[in-house]
This record gives sequence, structure tokens and C-alpha cells, in this order.
Amino acid sequence: MIESRFLAACRRQTTDATPVWFMRQAGRYMADYRAIREKFSLLEIVKQPELAAEVTLQPVRAFHVDAAILFADILLPLQPMGLDFEFAKGEGPVIHNPVRTQADVDALRPLHPEETLVHVMDAICLLRTELGNTPLIGFCGAPFTVASYMIEGGASRDYKTTKLMMYSAPKIWHALMDKLSTALAEYLTAQIHSGAQAVQLFDSWVGALSPMDYERFVLPYSKKVLEAAQATGVPVIHFGTGTATLLPLMRQAGGDVIGLDWRVPLELGWQAIGYDRAVQGNLDPVALLAPIPEMKKHILDVLRRAEGRPGHIFNLGHGILQQTPEENIRAAVEIVHAWRAG
Amino acid sequence: MIESRFLAACRRQTTDATPVWFMRQAGRYMADYRAIREKFSLLEIVKQPELAAEVTLQPVRAFHVDAAILFADILLPLQPMGLDFEFAKGEGPVIHNPVRTQADVDALRPLHPEETLVHVMDAICLLRTELGNTPLIGFCGAPFTVASYMIEGGASRDYKTTKLMMYSAPKIWHALMDKLSTALAEYLTAQIHSGAQAVQLFDSWVGALSPMDYERFVLPYSKKVLEAAQATGVPVIHFGTGTATLLPLMRQAGGDVIGLDWRVPLELGWQAIGYDRAVQGNLDPVALLAPIPEMKKHILDVLRRAEGRPGHIFNLGHGILQQTPEENIRAAVEIVHAWRAG
Repeated sequence: MIESRFLAACRRQTTDATPVWFMRQAGRYMADYRAIREKFSLLEIVKQPELAAEVTLQPVRAFHVDAAILFADILLPLQPMGLDFEFAKGEGPVIHNPVRTQADVDALRPLHPEETLVHVMDAICLLRTELGNTPLIGFCGAPFTVASYMIEGGASRDYKTTKLMMYSAPKIWHALMDKLSTALAEYLTAQIHSGAQAVQLFDSWVGALSPMDYERFVLPYSKKVLEAAQATGVPVIHFGTGTATLLPLMRQAGGDVIGLDWRVPLELGWQAIGYDRAVQGNLDPVALLAPIPEMKKHILDVLRRAEGRPGHIFNLGHGILQQTPEENIRAAVEIVHAWRAG
Repeated sequence: MIESRFLAACRRQTTDATPVWFMRQAGRYMADYRAIREKFSLLEIVKQPELAAEVTLQPVRAFHVDAAILFADILLPLQPMGLDFEFAKGEGPVIHNPVRTQADVDALRPLHPEETLVHVMDAICLLRTELGNTPLIGFCGAPFTVASYMIEGGASRDYKTTKLMMYSAPKIWHALMDKLSTALAEYLTAQIHSGAQAVQLFDSWVGALSPMDYERFVLPYSKKVLEAAQATGVPVIHFGTGTATLLPLMRQAGGDVIGLDWRVPLELGWQAIGYDRAVQGNLDPVALLAPIPEMKKHILDVLRRAEGRPGHIFNLGHGILQQTPEENIRAAVEIVHAWRAG
């Protein structure tokens, strides 16, 4: 069996080429995915393990990326915890009973992911059989990012209600984060027990916070989830955007691999984190929409900034945009894989 | 005449107290403002110098802030340059003929601000008479931020179309930025000639860019506007959000004062910029919604991080939120002014 480039890089081992995968690599930019979405909603796909597995496999087959990431959504735990959640047409996620009071927090149910999210575990089992040597990444949202949806009732621009709970009702905030981090730790470890060979914690919106607020209100809870996952022995990726000033604290919270977005030059981000951790990133997703020669310049710039140091996983700074041409993804994978050889 | 704390701090001179003003200090959070907005739209207020002046004065009278900022909008130059622009109800700014092609750029008209935006100049003249010792800040949007509205056709989450123009059609991008920076430099200097005693360049959305893209596609044009303003001798404030990794380049682009948002601890931001510039910031606007004792902690934290160094202007990291209680603004000003004495 060939050792996976992706898993080796997570452990900062030397690899024959830089591994590459893309956040949101299964998605609307692919014609094969759109064909399935014509018949099924996102939640319908997620809830049928065969469909979730099929969609997860599409980019692996098409582009030979070095890892698969389970097709799912960071908000899946909301429904089993008792929140009335849906994807409203054109509006994104909507939570009809957002969490605002101590009573709302008290009413949240424990997750029991092996029972309530059994379809996720089944999809992981199916995928392990079908993926062969390509490792499978499981994931969940980080406590802050998931809490922000729970509190705001959907996406937010300024995270006003969330921050105001921190500042005005810290007891409620800490009670929510405590419950949520327990649930997410269980969810992530359940995915690992079902066969996920690595996991990623998505703290997509954490860049809205000052380092002071992150340290006081978020770090202990992310740490709890990350420690639970790391205790299993699989590599753990800790991801956020807009995190230039949070990187040392994210490292402290945990993760074998820290995600970087394009706002921080890769070499400076790695320096801030410390070379005893691997890094993942950090191409601007818009660069994948550019003509291939221009795209290539941006990709090579990222690769050069990694300075050939083992422990770099090539990825974007955030998810693939819907308008990305499939041929650009194919070319991007080839450029990354060819680089060390060149 | 008492020398203005605000102007002295812009020049890094010692002051009797830290000066304070707030971005969007004239706005919906004030009952007096809402009373005027019941009768007039934002653009109607802006186009009537007496109304614009009245709205500008409201927070100065109510809260004794150390500077007034002209009530206007960064998108005012769009209409005279030939764009069909309106504030759509609940949607924010909409540009019906966004700039996408070389022909679109060629069709943009020179601004001639003294003629096309004469109402802005008239409001400034009126205000100077009424303000007495309180200095008046003029402002405009920075080339990147204004260009992003022109290209996207409104607000954006990922600045996809804007960045794609940089990457795929750099000639069109540079032609647009060249025209726009000329117009904005003329607009800002016209405001100074009309009596503005300081000016602020708002690059509110520049934090969407990598430092590499900023340096190549934005810095020269911001520099052109900033140099034109600085040549007049009045203090110039250079503001952006999400700029932790851009600060040294923003300093290079220019400005006597560099704005900081709450994502960067003030002392680290100042260090990155250099102590030969003043700084403005950097409270999270959400902190002004907290109960006053909690708000006070956040304000004192910002003040302490300035370490008593001359050249700190207290402000938010972005504009006042609509839900902010007026009594909190009043208390915030008092807390800032009392601090050095304490």
C-alpha cells in the first residue's frame, strides 16, 4: 500500500509531492454534482449515505485530489439538538428558534451522534470501502462558528447578537459553549470511530473576533473538541478565515495542521504558528477563476512560500466558488503535483 | 483658542486627554437623526447642505466628541461619474450599470467635484461656521473599496468580480483605478479647500485582499489619493478593516494616522505601522451595545494598550451599529476623556 501524501504531510513527513485537496471540492461547480442536486436537496443527499458517498467521490475520481472530505454540513447537529433548522431558498441556513436565553440553552438536547447522525457514520463506512488508498476527512463546525448560527438564527455580517451574549450574558454563553463543545467532540470522535482518517474543525467565522475575546470566550471550547479528536491519534486540522492575529492562539487551542487563508502570506503564517505544526492553504478561491496561466502564478507563489518544508497541504483559504471551471481544478491539481518534480 | 485635541493627536502631539470620535457617529442610533430620516432619504439629506450640516452637528452637540465628520456617503462620486446608482430599500447600494469592460471605464466621466458635488462643499462651509473649535473631518472612499462597488454592482461577500478583473483583465483594472484615484484625489482636496481640517480615506473592504494583491493592484492608487491630500498639509487618516497583514503596506501608501480594527491588538498594530505615525481605533462596535460596566472594561483595555503614547485617537474599528444606546455613546466619551486624568 502506498502511504498517503496527505496523511504524511499532516505528520510533517517528507512526501513525493505536495498533497492537495480543496474545501467544498464536492459542490455546485461540478456538472456531476448539479445533476444530482436537480433531483435532491442538500439535506436529502446528506441523509442518504449512498448519495452522500457518491457526491464525496465525484471530485476524487475527476481530479485525483489527495484526500476526500465527507459531503455534509456543519449545521447537521442543530436539528438533533432541538433547533428548527432549514436551508431556505436563496437565503442560506435559517434557524426558526435561535438560542438567546438560559432556558434555550437548557432545552438543547445532547447530540448522541451515533444515533441521531447515523447517516453520517454510514456514509463514512461506505466511503472507506470505495476510496481505497485515498484518505477520508471527517469534519464538524467549531463551537464559535456553530454557536454564531444558533444565536444569530442564520448567517451574520457583524455577529452582533453572538458577541453581545459574550459581553452581556457570559453565563449563558459559557453554558452554550460547554454543551456545544461536548456535542461536537462526540460528533467528531464518532466520525473517527466510523473510519474518518483525519478530521477538520471549521471555525470559518472566528476572524470576526479580537484575540482577547477569542482567548476568553472561544479557545477553551475549541480546545476541548480538538483534544478529544487528537486523543484518537488521527491528524486534526484546525481551520478558520481572517485569523492573521489569532494564529498563535489557534495553535494553543490545538490541531496538528493549522489552516491559513490568503490574507496572511504562507511563510509568515507558518512562522507565527511554529514549524512543529503542519499548515494547510492558502490560495484565494478567486484565483481558481482566473485564466490558467494567471492561476498558475498564484499557485506557484503559495508553493514557493512553503519553502519545501515538509508539512504543507495545498488548499484554498476558503471553499471553492460555484463559478470555478472544472478544468481549472484539474489543472491546479496537476500544477501542485508537478511542482516538486520541476 | 483651545488647540484641538484631535488635530494635535493626528500630529502625535501630547494632549490633555485622548481625543475620541466615532465612525458613523451621525446615524440611525440617534433619535434626532431618525426624526430627520422620517422626512428625508439619505441622499436627500446629503444633497441639502443645511440638512447635511444639521445631521453632522447632532452627535457633536449631544456627546461632545472631539471631531465632526461630514455626513455624506463614499458612493456620492458614482452618479456624477456616470453610474446609475441608488440606495435600494433594505438592499443597500445598487449600481444598475456596473463597470466590467474597457468601454465601461472609458465612459466614466471626470468628477469635477466643485461642480458636481457642490452640495458637499457647501455643507463643509456651513459647518466650519457652526462648529467653532471642533474640527471637521472630510472623507472619501478609497479606490479599491469604491471600485469594488462599481464592479460588483453593490455590496459583496467575496469580491469575486473585482478580484477577477485584477487577475484576468489587469489593463481594465488599472485603467479604472487610474481614473478613480484621480477623481478621488480631486474630491478629497476639494473638501480640504472648502474647509475640512482633516480627511479620512475609507478602504473599508480592503481586508478581502492578500498583501501581494494589495501591493500590486491597490497601493499605488491609494498612495496617489493620500499624497494629494497630504500635500495640502492637513492630517490624513487611512482606514481599513481586516487589515492585520496589510498595515505595513498601508503605511507605505500613506496617511498621518492609520486606522486599526479590533482584530489587531492596538499595541501590535501600532508596532507594525511604526511609532512615527498616529493610530486611530480600535474598539469592537459591538462593545458599545454591552452594559456600561462591561463596555468600560473594553474601552479601558484599548486605552491601556496605547500605553500613553501621544498619537492615539480613540474610535471604533468600524462604524457605530444602529442598535447602540445613545447613553452608551455619552458614557464612552466620558470614559475616554476621564482616563488620563485618572
